[in-house]
Amino acid sequence: MFEATKVGRTVDKVSFKSQQEALRTRLLEVQRELLQTDIPVIVLISGGEGAGKGEVVNRLNEWLDARGVRTFAFWDETDEERQRPRYWRFWNALPPRGEMAILFGGWYQTPLEQRFQGLWNDAELDAELNRIVDFEHMLINDGALVVKFWFHLSEPDQKTRLKKLSRDDRSRYQKYERIAEHVIRHTDRGISPWYLIEAQDRRYRDLTVGKTLLHAVKVRLSQPPAMDPPTTPSHLELPDVSSARITLLDQLDLSRSLDRQTYKSELGALQTELNELAWEAYNKKRSLVLVFEGVDASGKGGAIRRFVNAIDARLYRAIPIAAPTDEEKAHHYLWRFWRRIPRAGYITIYDRSWYGRVLVERVEGFATDAEWRRAYAEINQFEEQLVRSGTVLLKFWLQVSQEEQLRRFKDREQVPYKRFKITDEDWRNREKWPQYKAAVNEMVVRTSTAYTAWTLVEGDDKPYARIKVLRTLRDTLKTALAREPNGTGSQIPCEVKQS
Amino acid sequence: MFEATKVGRTVDKVSFKSQQEALRTRLLEVQRELLQTDIPVIVLISGGEGAGKGEVVNRLNEWLDARGVRTFAFWDETDEERQRPRYWRFWNALPPRGEMAILFGGWYQTPLEQRFQGLWNDAELDAELNRIVDFEHMLINDGALVVKFWFHLSEPDQKTRLKKLSRDDRSRYQKYERIAEHVIRHTDRGISPWYLIEAQDRRYRDLTVGKTLLHAVKVRLSQPPAMDPPTTPSHLELPDVSSARITLLDQLDLSRSLDRQTYKSELGALQTELNELAWEAYNKKRSLVLVFEGVDASGKGGAIRRFVNAIDARLYRAIPIAAPTDEEKAHHYLWRFWRRIPRAGYITIYDRSWYGRVLVERVEGFATDAEWRRAYAEINQFEEQLVRSGTVLLKFWLQVSQEEQLRRFKDREQVPYKRFKITDEDWRNREKWPQYKAAVNEMVVRTSTAYTAWTLVEGDDKPYARIKVLRTLRDTLKTALAREPNGTGSQIPCEVKQS
Repeated sequence: MFEATKVGRTVDKVSFKSQQEALRTRLLEVQRELLQTDIPVIVLISGGEGAGKGEVVNRLNEWLDARGVRTFAFWDETDEERQRPRYWRFWNALPPRGEMAILFGGWYQTPLEQRFQGLWNDAELDAELNRIVDFEHMLINDGALVVKFWFHLSEPDQKTRLKKLSRDDRSRYQKYERIAEHVIRHTDRGISPWYLIEAQDRRYRDLTVGKTLLHAVKVRLSQPPAMDPPTTPSHLELPDVSSARITLLDQLDLSRSLDRQTYKSELGALQTELNELAWEAYNKKRSLVLVFEGVDASGKGGAIRRFVNAIDARLYRAIPIAAPTDEEKAHHYLWRFWRRIPRAGYITIYDRSWYGRVLVERVEGFATDAEWRRAYAEINQFEEQLVRSGTVLLKFWLQVSQEEQLRRFKDREQVPYKRFKITDEDWRNREKWPQYKAAVNEMVVRTSTAYTAWTLVEGDDKPYARIKVLRTLRDTLKTALAREPNGTGSQIPCEVKQS
Repeated sequence: MFEATKVGRTVDKVSFKSQQEALRTRLLEVQRELLQTDIPVIVLISGGEGAGKGEVVNRLNEWLDARGVRTFAFWDETDEERQRPRYWRFWNALPPRGEMAILFGGWYQTPLEQRFQGLWNDAELDAELNRIVDFEHMLINDGALVVKFWFHLSEPDQKTRLKKLSRDDRSRYQKYERIAEHVIRHTDRGISPWYLIEAQDRRYRDLTVGKTLLHAVKVRLSQPPAMDPPTTPSHLELPDVSSARITLLDQLDLSRSLDRQTYKSELGALQTELNELAWEAYNKKRSLVLVFEGVDASGKGGAIRRFVNAIDARLYRAIPIAAPTDEEKAHHYLWRFWRRIPRAGYITIYDRSWYGRVLVERVEGFATDAEWRRAYAEINQFEEQLVRSGTVLLKFWLQVSQEEQLRRFKDREQVPYKRFKITDEDWRNREKWPQYKAAVNEMVVRTSTAYTAWTLVEGDDKPYARIKVLRTLRDTLKTALAREPNGTGSQIPCEVKQS
């Protein structure tokens, strides 16, 4: 494979000067055109030692308009980065639609180095490469153009370049080349191909990068917006008889309740325990992500308050999820949730979450069929990364009966300080009860995984619901903190989390 | 996840009877409609013990028109199957366009069992699941509809069912369920979702399968044919100066030649060695796949003849690849090559091959941009399977100069028994020399892998070319036979094959 980067391609000075001129003009034009579109462009700059990756990045920055492009190098992780799942830094580097990001090394750096240094074995490398394939696929599905460059030197050329830096031996070079070839081969897909570039002649190298990038963007701009692939319905077609249509939600016993006395004493005890557990998590650098979903007026806010009241305010952030901001809309739908992922030891509480994709966006038609259908796998992959990095993740669905919801709506209309909580939209959502129910059922089936199951909460009686939430939290935290986090290996814990 | 299959769904006798009636009629209608399309439908029937997979298959066969559907069970491998790469049996079961295949267990059976019996670890399981994701993706890209059913029983229900068959214990059930959940979760994608079906009530189970299958096919029939996703150009845009456009092919020294005397003596010696190596491979049950590609009149036939003349006729099959037959056209383009994969110990020689996809089909526009671009990864995955199963795979590209080709064309026109070998098409192909050259260069770059590199052969002098081919064959076979095959692990051999 790398033979093709050792054929001795060159560009003379005169040709370079004249061709560079034209190239710069066209790059700027194309950048302006890009700004009018919703295509984010991600440029990955990878390659062996001494191949001049830094020089290429400088050259691109010299040629491009700085207003539409940002560059990210992924050197040693910062404190902020080290304390979050590994991909957090990449999510932060993703460009908004219409703009460009140049990523130095990007997500290929770590797998290459870990394997080279023998810290990962072949199976671990392949597992990570498969995650990369899924990740790039997800970005491309979302409309991104991913342009991947690999710069390569022959062995003698690399030796010459690195003479002053370090000695290099033959087997070291060959080992690196073998691993690089495997990485490239595994991640070279029709929708995100690798461009291999001979790096010896700087003029050839830079001109080829510029022209190839220009061409890739131009081709993309000339294409019609992506059509969704044919979709396969994701739900069962059920027989036409009510006994065949029972769901998990129907099985919840919504009459469950707790008397005021028990509630009060249990609440106090649980809050004390949770306070201690939160500090224990902080000391052990384990972070906690909580997801609260539920129909309107199902008591999410009340349950969250009972939890945060117990916790030191410095340890948590509660994020109410409303309509996305402009900046959020300019990114992949998961971007705004990745942003808020807590540092090790801290807690983020999402009051509604990424599950909006397969709930409200599905039911209201804000996402296309193909979009919400592929979201289940995307969400599972996202959550797997959280859990893999040691985060404790809990997901609650709060269910109330239609009658109880109506009672609460009416109540809200009558109590002045609660009136702001009820809108026309709430009444409209209520009319789509059956569609929401089907969406919730499918959500639970497709995203209740061994490593992070849903907890369904019977919500008609608020005290009962709150205690169930807090108790589940306490039990899960206790178990999780007693164990080592899963680290970055490829193993997925197989224990079913009973809640 | 499986909680949703334990809610107690049932269908009473009367409802079943009346709904079955309507369902059968519509299934037959939809099957007739399907026959007019180019959509192959693949139905996978999986699930735990005692869940009635066999009953479901029988039911579907009772409901469907036998002329458009074939059923495959994958019990113990036959001799024919055991001696080929594992997926050979699945390729043989793939339905032609417009028809349906019901696969009992399918490609999920082995990974589930291997992991359950502890023969594979988690990493090996995940590696196989990623291969499955790629495989299904490839079928779906080719237009297939993949419908995956998983039938599940609760623990007490399974116990009741299996009472007479075997005793079952709690941990065994839980372990199986954990593995199954992981398998399903990992392979549950938007384009090929799993349908989980509660298997306790037979009427519910069968009616739901029938209705869900009907709906999936109907939805697919109602959709416009798939549009290609936006493509990214896969080639480098090169600077406009000839020194920047050198390729691997340009570096071949086509003036290399061999005198008649040396040729004769080398040929004899090599043929003797190859005869012995072929028998050794036969005895060691290692098979050999040879791919010969090259421009017209580059001497593929002559090189192949020099090899097969040395080999016992019972050991090899030489397959000249021409335009596909109707049956071949009704399948994925790799299907016709999978069919011919040799049994362990035997040799298949492809005179032109699957690389037609990225050569003639690309240049002549028989394949769309998206089709030939994704073919590189598909081909690499295919070849990896061959190598993984112990096959020795060699790929030769025979290159001749334009002048030498012209000389040979003219020669063919003059010699009566060679005249049939030259057609108008050959002359037309010759006009596309630059396009073919670019296609060959990209093919070599993207499909020369560590485990199966291309050998480029300088072809202007026939004796030189033939000896280089035979010598490469001898050396590679010798090395390969001295080593153990790679087995089915996830490890890819990292040695670069120098030829």
